[in-house]
Amino acid sequence: MTPAPAQATTEQLAALEKALAQELEQHRCAGLNLDLTRGKPSPEQLALADALDGILEGDYRDSAGGDLRNYGGIDGIAEAKALFADLLGVGTDDILVGGNSSLALMHLCAMFALHLGAAGPGSAWRSEGQDIKFIAPCPGYDRHFAICEQLGIALLPVAMGQDGPDMDAVESLLRADPMIKGIWCVPRFSNPTGCVYSDAVLARLARLARLAGPNFRVFCDNAYAVHALTDDAPALGNVMQAFRDEGTTDALYLFGSTSKMTFAGAGVAFLAMSPRNLAHFKTQLGVSQIGPDKINQMRHVRFLRDRDGVQHLMARHAAILRPRFDSVGRHLREGLEGWDIASWTEPRGGYFVSVDTLPGLATAVVRLAASAGVKLTPAGATYPGGRDPQDRNIRIAPSFPRVDEIDRAMAVFVTCLKLAGVRQRLGLPPC
Amino acid sequence: MTPAPAQATTEQLAALEKALAQELEQHRCAGLNLDLTRGKPSPEQLALADALDGILEGDYRDSAGGDLRNYGGIDGIAEAKALFADLLGVGTDDILVGGNSSLALMHLCAMFALHLGAAGPGSAWRSEGQDIKFIAPCPGYDRHFAICEQLGIALLPVAMGQDGPDMDAVESLLRADPMIKGIWCVPRFSNPTGCVYSDAVLARLARLARLAGPNFRVFCDNAYAVHALTDDAPALGNVMQAFRDEGTTDALYLFGSTSKMTFAGAGVAFLAMSPRNLAHFKTQLGVSQIGPDKINQMRHVRFLRDRDGVQHLMARHAAILRPRFDSVGRHLREGLEGWDIASWTEPRGGYFVSVDTLPGLATAVVRLAASAGVKLTPAGATYPGGRDPQDRNIRIAPSFPRVDEIDRAMAVFVTCLKLAGVRQRLGLPPC
Repeated sequence: MTPAPAQATTEQLAALEKALAQELEQHRCAGLNLDLTRGKPSPEQLALADALDGILEGDYRDSAGGDLRNYGGIDGIAEAKALFADLLGVGTDDILVGGNSSLALMHLCAMFALHLGAAGPGSAWRSEGQDIKFIAPCPGYDRHFAICEQLGIALLPVAMGQDGPDMDAVESLLRADPMIKGIWCVPRFSNPTGCVYSDAVLARLARLARLAGPNFRVFCDNAYAVHALTDDAPALGNVMQAFRDEGTTDALYLFGSTSKMTFAGAGVAFLAMSPRNLAHFKTQLGVSQIGPDKINQMRHVRFLRDRDGVQHLMARHAAILRPRFDSVGRHLREGLEGWDIASWTEPRGGYFVSVDTLPGLATAVVRLAASAGVKLTPAGATYPGGRDPQDRNIRIAPSFPRVDEIDRAMAVFVTCLKLAGVRQRLGLPPC
Repeated sequence: MTPAPAQATTEQLAALEKALAQELEQHRCAGLNLDLTRGKPSPEQLALADALDGILEGDYRDSAGGDLRNYGGIDGIAEAKALFADLLGVGTDDILVGGNSSLALMHLCAMFALHLGAAGPGSAWRSEGQDIKFIAPCPGYDRHFAICEQLGIALLPVAMGQDGPDMDAVESLLRADPMIKGIWCVPRFSNPTGCVYSDAVLARLARLARLAGPNFRVFCDNAYAVHALTDDAPALGNVMQAFRDEGTTDALYLFGSTSKMTFAGAGVAFLAMSPRNLAHFKTQLGVSQIGPDKINQMRHVRFLRDRDGVQHLMARHAAILRPRFDSVGRHLREGLEGWDIASWTEPRGGYFVSVDTLPGLATAVVRLAASAGVKLTPAGATYPGGRDPQDRNIRIAPSFPRVDEIDRAMAVFVTCLKLAGVRQRLGLPPC
């Protein structure tokens, strides 16, 4: 057994480097073409919802007799509001059900708040100045950051912990700078660390509005609200209730979607807000469109039925996803035992495993893996601007490939990580 | 036969006023509840597309083998691009196919051009100053105007003629003011007059970019591209080709949708642009969403098939719509013969009839009709800010009600119009 590099002599390290380089060369000769980059459901998962098309059986009426085929209703159908309000733990008057993209709702919320104001005339962030900022718990979701980058909103990174963002850091940033207008959160099975925000963190998030300047908003993307991998996965407290307890519901935008329940590209997105925010947002949204696709909303209602129906479906998703996550965890555990070269998360839900290497290795690992046909999310993608200051975080997305593909890809990944680590110890360029 | 007011003495007018007021009173007692306000397809029309849900029969692959259920592809599926490019007369590389709302695409285009720039860094309209303006041919579509009003873009009205906007007026406005960044156009069966832009108007539109300041865009909403009521309805020239002939394709945004081909709320929208604009817009759009609902796009491809399929479907729509438009025309012609109190359009396509009363009557007519249970689009709605400077335009939307309902509503409308006109002649308040 090759000794782990922490205990190895320089000679042993050199031999190890040679062996690992050979191992990588073998991987390279295998002609792999594997992809661990995006949090896409696998075909087996998508097939769980194949009944969607045709489920209406020609019945295009809602329960109130409304014609789903025609225009009308900016905030979605009542049946969809009831279902998704229940999933998010909000009231049916606190929710809007939209089209196929929760990201589109986040983008509109940010754009409207920035330029038009989220709370009536004079409330536009831009009216306070040009240097608007958001807090970005890192590692985080690159598409959240991209919205801010497009809109010219600066991102202030804070560290993610086991139970949510470093709230001490968040609070002191907010106390010091009234131009901070938002924070990105994925409160359950966070992208990519998989952590679940604790009740204490939720309570502190709900109190942020008191420290912040005017019109501060928590952009809370509950993308994985019901996406547990195991029965004993930690629950998330009621986010809206946490804000209600603090009297700060106007500071919360709570997003969700069925993108990873039914069809990733053809699901239904929703947005919970205080009635005041919702009235305002509906007026703004109503200028940009006549209304959402109500027929697809009804397909989802008929298919998902209720909370029990959703739970049953999500258990089937979990059964498909578990072996994939198990493969990732096993390769990391067995391959890196005693190496002290990386730490990683063991999420109990969501779509990602987050690996933190020793500083300065992530870019090299991603490049080495690419050279052997294993595509990983670019190093740095989980940080604002795509720049991880310590170059250590790598996001692994194991949902889409088959288990045998993940096994092969993870073997390559472990080889690359060890090789980069050994080279770093030897003072060689890791890639 | 009562003499028309143009020839009537004051005594005759007074008698006429009394008779018309009694006629209105009879209408009021009929307890009507009719609505001629919105351009919504009727249930019979919607039923033409009832095969959409379920049409995929479990086949969620595109012709290249791609999985329509998953994420991917910001600009829509190739099959939908081919179909809708053909309908708009553009190349398959000049089109993006989106979600259910062309209005949402227009809104995003305007918002991006205003704040981010439609042609790269430094091209944002806002960077030139705060007083951005659009030209609004009037009467026009209130939802177009509302986008500008929301974004703080001023609207400069110009008159609509038989073959498009008053291009002399448009050109002289543009020559004088480089802060004019756009013009709204509905080139075929314009909302509400039903006019079809002539080739000469298209050519002059295509030349506007040379008169205008930088980053000028023609927002061309071809909502009724294939929506003829009769076989001999005037054709529209090829809009993109007109701009190509002038070398100004970067100045054209050409929108369309199936909202009035299949399901009004659950159709597919598309946007044709120069490759340069499209590359830019796709990058911006890709920040706001991962992609459109590809499954619904494929439903439309399977259902509509090709240009012939669309023509066949639209002929069935026309057969449903024609008696409705015939009713409106007959009531106006027969009821107002010799009255010299209003003119109106006799559209050969689209969704509206536009009535111009004598100045100062429109608001009164709409109010009188409402008092008898006939809801009309608010007077002024077809002008920026909802203010028709001459108070004369009324938009009639006959698509949704049944023919017998339109007959009743139009009888009320004619009575109200005559009554308001007679009262005006008598110097009485018309309502």
